[in-house]
Amino acid sequence: MIRNIKLTIEYDGTNYHGWQEQDNLQTIQGCLKQAIYDLCKENVIIYGAGRTDAGVHAKAQIANFRTESKIPDYAFAKALNTLLPEDIAIKASVEVPDSFHSQFAAQKKAYSYNIINRKTRPTMDRKFMHWVWVLLDIDRMQEGANYLLGKHDFSAFEAANSPRQSSVRTIYEIRVEKKQDYVKIWVEADGFLYHMVRNIAGTLIAVGKKKYAPEHIKRVLESRNRTLAASTAPACGLCLEYIEY
Amino acid sequence: MIRNIKLTIEYDGTNYHGWQEQDNLQTIQGCLKQAIYDLCKENVIIYGAGRTDAGVHAKAQIANFRTESKIPDYAFAKALNTLLPEDIAIKASVEVPDSFHSQFAAQKKAYSYNIINRKTRPTMDRKFMHWVWVLLDIDRMQEGANYLLGKHDFSAFEAANSPRQSSVRTIYEIRVEKKQDYVKIWVEADGFLYHMVRNIAGTLIAVGKKKYAPEHIKRVLESRNRTLAASTAPACGLCLEYIEY
Repeated sequence: MIRNIKLTIEYDGTNYHGWQEQDNLQTIQGCLKQAIYDLCKENVIIYGAGRTDAGVHAKAQIANFRTESKIPDYAFAKALNTLLPEDIAIKASVEVPDSFHSQFAAQKKAYSYNIINRKTRPTMDRKFMHWVWVLLDIDRMQEGANYLLGKHDFSAFEAANSPRQSSVRTIYEIRVEKKQDYVKIWVEADGFLYHMVRNIAGTLIAVGKKKYAPEHIKRVLESRNRTLAASTAPACGLCLEYIEY
Repeated sequence: MIRNIKLTIEYDGTNYHGWQEQDNLQTIQGCLKQAIYDLCKENVIIYGAGRTDAGVHAKAQIANFRTESKIPDYAFAKALNTLLPEDIAIKASVEVPDSFHSQFAAQKKAYSYNIINRKTRPTMDRKFMHWVWVLLDIDRMQEGANYLLGKHDFSAFEAANSPRQSSVRTIYEIRVEKKQDYVKIWVEADGFLYHMVRNIAGTLIAVGKKKYAPEHIKRVLESRNRTLAASTAPACGLCLEYIEY
């Protein structure tokens, strides 16, 4: 009997060339495929909910694969964790209907973009936070972020040469929070374009540094012109937080 | 003119054989000494407030050294940060009276012991948290911890063959806090014996797992017998939080 198994995956993306399998490069999908092969002796196809870039982290990436193995669904997590490298872990494994596809069935996704905002470069946080030493004005960042709420064409925040048919997405929530030296940009949407969160983060950081007024975000958004947004914030600050189905 | 410079140092201790300089081994003190040599061409003696073990982290270790260099005191931080490896950073540098000694002048020290308490092994936190998969009972841990408050002979929580003359220390505060999957043991004292926080953490974890009653802590403390305490918790969970003068 063939079952469809859904995995919830956490990873430290520092040492990987992103999610997607690539020849001769270490990727999350490639490591998962190998671990499943080691466990079940099956060459499975793994469908991921989203392709995270090199250096991007995930607290709850979702993937699914089909297997003929007789292992109980919940037991995949523990078994795979003994086979996976120390920077990838399966938090849960569960059988789902055959129709389930982790990418197409996703209703909502949330990412955080994490900044350490202080004079001194980070040590312990250096792989999980983007360091900004200019003091950020959080209120301005939130004011700018508010222009992004709702359904918009986000072309201006999409990487050049992206393959998507439509650049329209809906942002349900976007919050800029500060706690001690840590600034978190939290974005929840029905989906994200390639580099969208990192481009939004880069532009909001420029607003927080007072390079731009908060209204600049509105102008960039309406222009649909990628060249108006600030530079893409570094991968290490980005973390896929959750995916809702 | 010889000045006495005090440094506040943050480090990710993962890749170091602890604070103290050792021949042919990478240590925090050794890296600092080298960076100061590169900057000032002086072979200085660095006095550290406390010797952290291999794998232990610090948010604000304190050290001092004497120099003849003409660099303004505040400028050492920035200059040394360009010379130090990415896992060590100077947060502040300031001139102090010649009588200041970072170890002997310390009035209070605080350490945190950081635990990730969930079924799945950690990925992003694996170098900064000790993983405990059995659900910990925080109330029991705090109840046990309360026996340690105040002035006691902490021999039972000191590593065997420790060189200290007296094992009496005063714990001013000891808190066990839980937030989502994270458990933090926070201890503030006038000083700590060798392995004291890690031995306390190991024993409190055993209480949290219900291996021992909270009152067991009192019996261990009063016994002054190291063999009654549970095993030393791993170094990666320990972080030197601050030192007060």
